[in-house]
Amino acid sequence: MNKRKIFNDPVHGFITIPHELIFDIIEHPYFQRLRRIKQLGLSDYIYPGALHTRFHHALGAFHLMRKAISILKIKGIEITAEEELGASIAILLHDIGHGPFSHTLERTLIKGVNHEHISKIFLQKLNQEFDGKLSLAIKIFEGTYTKKFLHSLVSSQLDVDRLDYLTRDSFFTGVNEGIVSYDRIIEMMNVQNDELVIEQKGIYSIENFIISRRLMYWQVYLHKTVLCVEQMLIKAVERAKYLIENDITLPCSEALDFFLKNKITLHDFETNSQAIQHFADLDDVDVFAALKSWKNTSDNVLSLLCSSILNRHLFKIEITKEPFTESEITKLKEKAAAYFKLPQEEAKWLIFQDSTYNHAYNAKQGTIKIIDQQGNVQNAENISQHLEATVLSEKVVKYFVCYPKALSTI
Amino acid sequence: MNKRKIFNDPVHGFITIPHELIFDIIEHPYFQRLRRIKQLGLSDYIYPGALHTRFHHALGAFHLMRKAISILKIKGIEITAEEELGASIAILLHDIGHGPFSHTLERTLIKGVNHEHISKIFLQKLNQEFDGKLSLAIKIFEGTYTKKFLHSLVSSQLDVDRLDYLTRDSFFTGVNEGIVSYDRIIEMMNVQNDELVIEQKGIYSIENFIISRRLMYWQVYLHKTVLCVEQMLIKAVERAKYLIENDITLPCSEALDFFLKNKITLHDFETNSQAIQHFADLDDVDVFAALKSWKNTSDNVLSLLCSSILNRHLFKIEITKEPFTESEITKLKEKAAAYFKLPQEEAKWLIFQDSTYNHAYNAKQGTIKIIDQQGNVQNAENISQHLEATVLSEKVVKYFVCYPKALSTI
Amino acid sequence: MNKRKIFNDPVHGFITIPHELIFDIIEHPYFQRLRRIKQLGLSDYIYPGALHTRFHHALGAFHLMRKAISILKIKGIEITAEEELGASIAILLHDIGHGPFSHTLERTLIKGVNHEHISKIFLQKLNQEFDGKLSLAIKIFEGTYTKKFLHSLVSSQLDVDRLDYLTRDSFFTGVNEGIVSYDRIIEMMNVQNDELVIEQKGIYSIENFIISRRLMYWQVYLHKTVLCVEQMLIKAVERAKYLIENDITLPCSEALDFFLKNKITLHDFETNSQAIQHFADLDDVDVFAALKSWKNTSDNVLSLLCSSILNRHLFKIEITKEPFTESEITKLKEKAAAYFKLPQEEAKWLIFQDSTYNHAYNAKQGTIKIIDQQGNVQNAENISQHLEATVLSEKVVKYFVCYPKALSTI
Amino acid sequence: MNKRKIFNDPVHGFITIPHELIFDIIEHPYFQRLRRIKQLGLSDYIYPGALHTRFHHALGAFHLMRKAISILKIKGIEITAEEELGASIAILLHDIGHGPFSHTLERTLIKGVNHEHISKIFLQKLNQEFDGKLSLAIKIFEGTYTKKFLHSLVSSQLDVDRLDYLTRDSFFTGVNEGIVSYDRIIEMMNVQNDELVIEQKGIYSIENFIISRRLMYWQVYLHKTVLCVEQMLIKAVERAKYLIENDITLPCSEALDFFLKNKITLHDFETNSQAIQHFADLDDVDVFAALKSWKNTSDNVLSLLCSSILNRHLFKIEITKEPFTESEITKLKEKAAAYFKLPQEEAKWLIFQDSTYNHAYNAKQGTIKIIDQQGNVQNAENISQHLEATVLSEKVVKYFVCYPKALSTI
Repeated sequence: MNKRKIFNDPVHGFITIPHELIFDIIEHPYFQRLRRIKQLGLSDYIYPGALHTRFHHALGAFHLMRKAISILKIKGIEITAEEELGASIAILLHDIGHGPFSHTLERTLIKGVNHEHISKIFLQKLNQEFDGKLSLAIKIFEGTYTKKFLHSLVSSQLDVDRLDYLTRDSFFTGVNEGIVSYDRIIEMMNVQNDELVIEQKGIYSIENFIISRRLMYWQVYLHKTVLCVEQMLIKAVERAKYLIENDITLPCSEALDFFLKNKITLHDFETNSQAIQHFADLDDVDVFAALKSWKNTSDNVLSLLCSSILNRHLFKIEITKEPFTESEITKLKEKAAAYFKLPQEEAKWLIFQDSTYNHAYNAKQGTIKIIDQQGNVQNAENISQHLEATVLSEKVVKYFVCYPKALSTI
Repeated sequence: MNKRKIFNDPVHGFITIPHELIFDIIEHPYFQRLRRIKQLGLSDYIYPGALHTRFHHALGAFHLMRKAISILKIKGIEITAEEELGASIAILLHDIGHGPFSHTLERTLIKGVNHEHISKIFLQKLNQEFDGKLSLAIKIFEGTYTKKFLHSLVSSQLDVDRLDYLTRDSFFTGVNEGIVSYDRIIEMMNVQNDELVIEQKGIYSIENFIISRRLMYWQVYLHKTVLCVEQMLIKAVERAKYLIENDITLPCSEALDFFLKNKITLHDFETNSQAIQHFADLDDVDVFAALKSWKNTSDNVLSLLCSSILNRHLFKIEITKEPFTESEITKLKEKAAAYFKLPQEEAKWLIFQDSTYNHAYNAKQGTIKIIDQQGNVQNAENISQHLEATVLSEKVVKYFVCYPKALSTI
Repeated sequence: MNKRKIFNDPVHGFITIPHELIFDIIEHPYFQRLRRIKQLGLSDYIYPGALHTRFHHALGAFHLMRKAISILKIKGIEITAEEELGASIAILLHDIGHGPFSHTLERTLIKGVNHEHISKIFLQKLNQEFDGKLSLAIKIFEGTYTKKFLHSLVSSQLDVDRLDYLTRDSFFTGVNEGIVSYDRIIEMMNVQNDELVIEQKGIYSIENFIISRRLMYWQVYLHKTVLCVEQMLIKAVERAKYLIENDITLPCSEALDFFLKNKITLHDFETNSQAIQHFADLDDVDVFAALKSWKNTSDNVLSLLCSSILNRHLFKIEITKEPFTESEITKLKEKAAAYFKLPQEEAKWLIFQDSTYNHAYNAKQGTIKIIDQQGNVQNAENISQHLEATVLSEKVVKYFVCYPKALSTI
Repeated sequence: MNKRKIFNDPVHGFITIPHELIFDIIEHPYFQRLRRIKQLGLSDYIYPGALHTRFHHALGAFHLMRKAISILKIKGIEITAEEELGASIAILLHDIGHGPFSHTLERTLIKGVNHEHISKIFLQKLNQEFDGKLSLAIKIFEGTYTKKFLHSLVSSQLDVDRLDYLTRDSFFTGVNEGIVSYDRIIEMMNVQNDELVIEQKGIYSIENFIISRRLMYWQVYLHKTVLCVEQMLIKAVERAKYLIENDITLPCSEALDFFLKNKITLHDFETNSQAIQHFADLDDVDVFAALKSWKNTSDNVLSLLCSSILNRHLFKIEITKEPFTESEITKLKEKAAAYFKLPQEEAKWLIFQDSTYNHAYNAKQGTIKIIDQQGNVQNAENISQHLEATVLSEKVVKYFVCYPKALSTI
């Protein structure tokens, strides 16, 4: 084919696109849209290099899928050319349903419809456009294909998605401690009874993978300043919705306007082609353009939130192991109302609390399987003293409250 | 100070901010704006990792300035604390006047006012806000300070600006060949008779620096596909300006609207505070938000250009050593008019030609000085057989024409 | 000085030697000898890149010491130029007493005298040669200097020695998972009440440091094949000693001969200048040259061990959680005696068992101190859920037996 | 097979051994010997990390060969499994004939027999041991196989040997400027009319390759201090030979003794199995063990040379563009004779002069072929303005003289 293409990836080196169908999917506007959705939302406010996109991550995960399949084939696992293509497409499109600022706005812009739902709708639409050629990919993506291990490569405790994003996020943030030996882990992959397993001598790499992931959560994904700015963005969008509901006009793009004005359900997405079309038009640009426009709006709350985000005048965030008491929050709200000359009930827009948690290794969501030299398969946590330690399997919860810095000095 | 701050930079490791004034400058909205201006414009269309910003580059160059000054001080060159601060601020702000998509739109949005002009205006404004504390930095920036070598560190054939951007652009594009041994070059810096010089044993690193820079020009900055998409963006903005002049309404941000509607001169910037304020509000987001909105406009030309950029349906580009002839261009325009059903005179918006050039080592713009062990200073091109070769000092010109891909098959 | 020197280090970049005395110490034959002692003994049999030397590591640790001191000084900790020089020399020479193949032969060649003993003797001798200029360095090295934190930088649970060797060993083995964020840890260093502490926001880096160290132990330092070849080398040297005691002549270097023939005690080293002079002549070359010569000796046991090491025909190693039983070992010895036609009592030279252990974080040997924003100091294991987990503080023991591969198939 | 093996390579990541025969060749003592021959001789005296071996380089070049073949096959070039195996073995063994300190002692220890000659003899012997399975590899190695491009991959201006050693030497020395985009170059490889060609868009990578190679020559391979210590080693070995010819006994290994005492010719190697067996026993260890022993010899000249090398008390080296005059040399010799109390005719052992040269791109030795999109093949120097420049095609000669440092101050 004359469509052969190579991407230069500072993380993995050269990424080769080996198939015309994959080339055509990458060219599709749905996929090109991912160029405008950053992988880590607003984390670049703390790690200025972290501007990489879902587009780049999807290509990287695709590259690792090809490596994994190649290793498994060398080890004698039967994988047909169709299955390889299907798994490759499944991983390429696994995040296609993400909206602007990914997880941050996932439950704000559109309530009750998560990105997996939307990914499936996009997959169906693309399958129609490409004459059913994505049917096997969809089965693998949804976990309904007979060879289950292919789905595990796409989505499990140790899938190529995680291997790529941990590596990529470490690379672009500069947090070297998050580095995972993805190539070693892939070398150790095998399949036993249709189950994806890791050969026992890779156990230390698995431990390191779990620990690195935990570190990335606290140091990057749930970094306190990241939490804070994300909350500020959520509040800004919620305030905008609230104002619009109260018939205030706020300039923004047509696509964003659609989701601010309407309560869109999964049913709408499935039946109303306008919904998915508007969603396909939505990306980080719409949100930031709106913030830039709203920073001059007459509503003081919205204007304060927007200009604070844009100029990186971040709120103060306090983190604790226990929830904040009602009275602590009330005191802060009173301060805010007085300081910003707001009605008491408006103060909640500037004082926000929430909690976050991390589960380093949650065996309930499936475990990593280890195969020993005799062919016995066990759960990783039964083999590694380290993973069995309760600290990793325990859910860690942190509570936080955010408020304008001005309040901390009064 | 409790404002001590560290940035995580995947390129240089940790960047420490050692001074309160520098911290405050970084916090200023003018500087934060650089977070929204990509260093390499649309190069991420070819190198998906190349999303780094002028903000990041400014911090990196600042970091190298501190290294260079520290090395020079160890070698006995007198540099006071004030001078160090001044040079640090000068490099931090050297690109503050860049607008959206930097060089691409520099001569399109605002004619006759380049980014250096605007940098100086920003510097003056910041100097006022910071009670004259930037006066020395401004002198160093403009080259009027007595110790000329400080200006050379900010701006010359071998300044820390170039050392950072070559390194950074290599890193984020993944073009390893552009790697420059910036640390070795800085180790070899010295000052003789108020002139920045390189110690002779660094001559191979200097050669490598020139060659790497040349390679980055052809492989990245002037990559044919980059040229093409940049031209498409220029044409889209020019078409928008043209339509607005003809009283067509096009939605866009207030700041962008200001520059599309008005012919702003350097004089306006100096006298009309509105001009600089609007400029300070302008960044990559405004332009991309406009493209997204204009792709649905009723003007076919503008709509085609915008949707082609957004969906990365790039035009075809042909590059030659000689200019294209009038008749070749006319033929293409006729094809375009026919194919897109446009009046003949509109075809020029879809068929564009231009030329670009690169000068690997232009001794007329100042040379790199080499000092031998006896203390004699010579121009690099007199010492290195390599640099004296005409191929490096010759200006290389390439001509190109771009047109919609559809035309190449008819 | 005209002795200014820069080392090119692929790990840390450029290492600058800032002081004439340090330059002269590096030039001394005692220090140059470290060029011929590999940091990781025979680990290159498994990781072919792991050929780096104690010389290189000493320079790297020295470089990190300078970084640490520079950070502490910026934070207001008083460290005089003399103290800086003393601490720099202390770390530069911390491993000067290592003999050939470091830990592997430490208890074989010379019984009852470890490398710390010998380091102190070398330090005293150098101090004499350099007119007492190393006195402060010796105090810091031995922990008798008033500012205890300087000793902690040289030797503690989180010293620059460990930071360099983990980083360096990761780099040259290619085991990326061992990467430690040494620069971040150094950035987080501080001193409180004369105690080296880490600022609390560095806690994840500390966790990662402990985990990475643990991983490096199992994956590199105590890798089963490394254990096996090291045991083979020990047995070869012990066999040679045994033969020499029984009046068999074995060719080898004069220095090695001295230690094979004589039982040297610490007292000998302190009183007999010949002992330390011979030791200063001894390095990896002597041992490997001996192996090469002995592989042709008439003693079958020694010849088998030597040629097996040289040609990398490694023995088989079995690792278990419980010690091997007497009868298992006896059975192996019988097999060996039969197969190699040896008297029963000679079989022990080819069948060897031992145990090894690792202690990821042994609080009894001193703990890592964390300081919070209020200035309170606590042990790391009291703050980090992760470090308090018993799995890290428990000593892990592994038992192993090695025997010629031929025996496994009969 | 249960012989599947993976090497951890810090340069290329994991290197997989895919074939039992290759595994067995690697296990052979001839190949294991390469573990004891450093790739860059004594360059670690200047670049302390440069301790990597011919063993490691051979594995790396083998890895790149497999990559290159895989790319060519994807592009439709027919390469059978046998040919792939043959080319892989040919590159794996391309340096098998190197002796201790490679090029340094190549013309000193054994006159008139270079390492290519010896490689061929080793190849023949291995072919016998492996029942003729290396016949195709030998044909490819010698360039007599019908598909010539396979030989070009092993040995030409742009073979995988060069791609690996430039990359590897850059990596271990830390000279980043030598980095070559080997993966990009391999991606651009193709075959036209049985000729290995590079696709035109790789032209900048080719230029960079030539420039980087030139830089590595002057900065590493022919670094003045490297030249000096190599000359000192050559003189030490020559002096030892001279003493032995004069019936002085010098202790050393049996293998080294054989080559010091006898004048071995190519004919001897071909007919006398003892010669090749002794050569197979010879490596860097023998030479360094000899130096260590000879440093205490009664011959002052040899003793001075050996202890100077071991303690890195290097001679002074002066480099010029013109040869030194007879009288300059005579003057130095007189000084040396006086200072070291030597007979006049012995002074030549301490005063040595020679010349060295580098040819960045010598079109006479074959050129790099570039293929354009129309399928036309041209020489790289005809396409690249850069490569056609005379500076690269000119041979650069440097003259040098070395003498003990003591002489420079009298």
